Amino acid sequence: MTGAPASPTIGVFDSGFGGLTVLRALIDRLPHARYAFLGDTARLPYGSKSRRTIARYAIESAQFLVREQGAEFLVIACNTASALALDAIRDAVPVPVLGVIEPGADAARAASRTGDALVIATDATVQSHAYTAAGTARGLRVLEKACPLLVPLVEEGWTNHPVTSEVIRIYLDELNAAAAAQQMQPDALVLGCTHYPLLRPLIQSTVAVGVQVIDSAAAVAEAAARSFPTLPAASPHARDTEIRCFATDSVEKFQQLGSRFLGRPVGEVGLVDLGG
Amino acid sequence: MTGAPASPTIGVFDSGFGGLTVLRALIDRLPHARYAFLGDTARLPYGSKSRRTIARYAIESAQFLVREQGAEFLVIACNTASALALDAIRDAVPVPVLGVIEPGADAARAASRTGDALVIATDATVQSHAYTAAGTARGLRVLEKACPLLVPLVEEGWTNHPVTSEVIRIYLDELNAAAAAQQMQPDALVLGCTHYPLLRPLIQSTVAVGVQVIDSAAAVAEAAARSFPTLPAASPHARDTEIRCFATDSVEKFQQLGSRFLGRPVGEVGLVDLGG
Repeated sequence: MTGAPASPTIGVFDSGFGGLTVLRALIDRLPHARYAFLGDTARLPYGSKSRRTIARYAIESAQFLVREQGAEFLVIACNTASALALDAIRDAVPVPVLGVIEPGADAARAASRTGDALVIATDATVQSHAYTAAGTARGLRVLEKACPLLVPLVEEGWTNHPVTSEVIRIYLDELNAAAAAQQMQPDALVLGCTHYPLLRPLIQSTVAVGVQVIDSAAAVAEAAARSFPTLPAASPHARDTEIRCFATDSVEKFQQLGSRFLGRPVGEVGLVDLGG
Repeated sequence: MTGAPASPTIGVFDSGFGGLTVLRALIDRLPHARYAFLGDTARLPYGSKSRRTIARYAIESAQFLVREQGAEFLVIACNTASALALDAIRDAVPVPVLGVIEPGADAARAASRTGDALVIATDATVQSHAYTAAGTARGLRVLEKACPLLVPLVEEGWTNHPVTSEVIRIYLDELNAAAAAQQMQPDALVLGCTHYPLLRPLIQSTVAVGVQVIDSAAAVAEAAARSFPTLPAASPHARDTEIRCFATDSVEKFQQLGSRFLGRPVGEVGLVDLGG
């Protein structure tokens, strides 16, 4: 980014609604930017799909935000797309692109004293081992686990439900056993999927004492802010921030579920046809 | 269908792997047909998407089976696509098209003595009320319930897991309470999603005594067989049946999961690009 326009448009992309938790953190940190958010809801979830398919979908979505919405900066608010398609997206658009993996790994590195961190994420993110690579580059040992049931549980609205507690307990027990088998002493757990912050209270009550739960949204907002050094930081007028939301499928569902993730009404949602 | 060719090709379509349970029933009933199966795995699940999106995806898939694979008869082995896009598919291809809703409703009508039936299915199928309409046309009162967690639980492989039992119990308790509130006396439960037959043992042990669990796969195979009166029925050589499988995403995952649904190895899987 050369210079800093008065009101730059930041494009934020996710496969669904989860990325609105990142948009929320961005608005808190950079209320004077304008935002265009796209949820590729017609093709979600990405987490169970292949690298090739994820890259194709993510590129089409990124191009929409840059070409049609004038985004001058892109935040890929989807761990799966960040893990598997960041380079492909960077090759496809002429603006800076920020993913969520690197900021999340930074936050884990800052939080961990033992140098051992755990990551829970989707199947595709875990299979990419993007968090392990980002951790290794920071001198952090990382152990990852796919938790494919957590997204559907959030989408069912069971964010404070005994079944969800039990599923989290099972996943974390398996992860802790694997960590112990490798003589790891993890003291940080990264929520490697933008749906998971809605499960934070349940996860927090299940992790071992002394393990810090890390939601990368705030770290992503901080990293984005470094690209806009002249833009004023948070103000009490954040509610006036301009947000345009788009989805590739049912805008009604987006409005209904999206407000839960954004923490306020998402407003009008535009329907976009990406040809898939 | 005019006449019955010696070895007709039957195209079978699903959003994912679940439809392989229907293919299995078809092979059992019509082992002398040839089969082309397409799983639109790059865009699954359909069950949480809108009618418009589902119809577009289903039409592209149906056209692939007819135009590229020479299917002379199509079975839409996906409740969601059958419920929301059957007419659109029929308009788009020049061959007979059989969905799973009507045969399932026939089976429920035949099984029920009280005239009251329950249906569990995906969000989109339930919202379409296709089962209610098909039931009403047969003098059957139908009560439907969306069970969005069951597909992810099957895909996680938790088909015989205490969490899955608990989720089924919660869903069926809610459904039974709603039925009681309407003075219904249901004695049939239709598995309105092709993933659910893999949960049949757990569902069977949870339903009230006297309630018959109906898997529409056998009913669909029976309905298909009526279109091929001159084709020999089941033979001991069913294992020689020609099956070509295609998927729009990771063929490895298809091979791995698909065999569980088909009950035997799916063999080579071709990767298809439907442009989405």
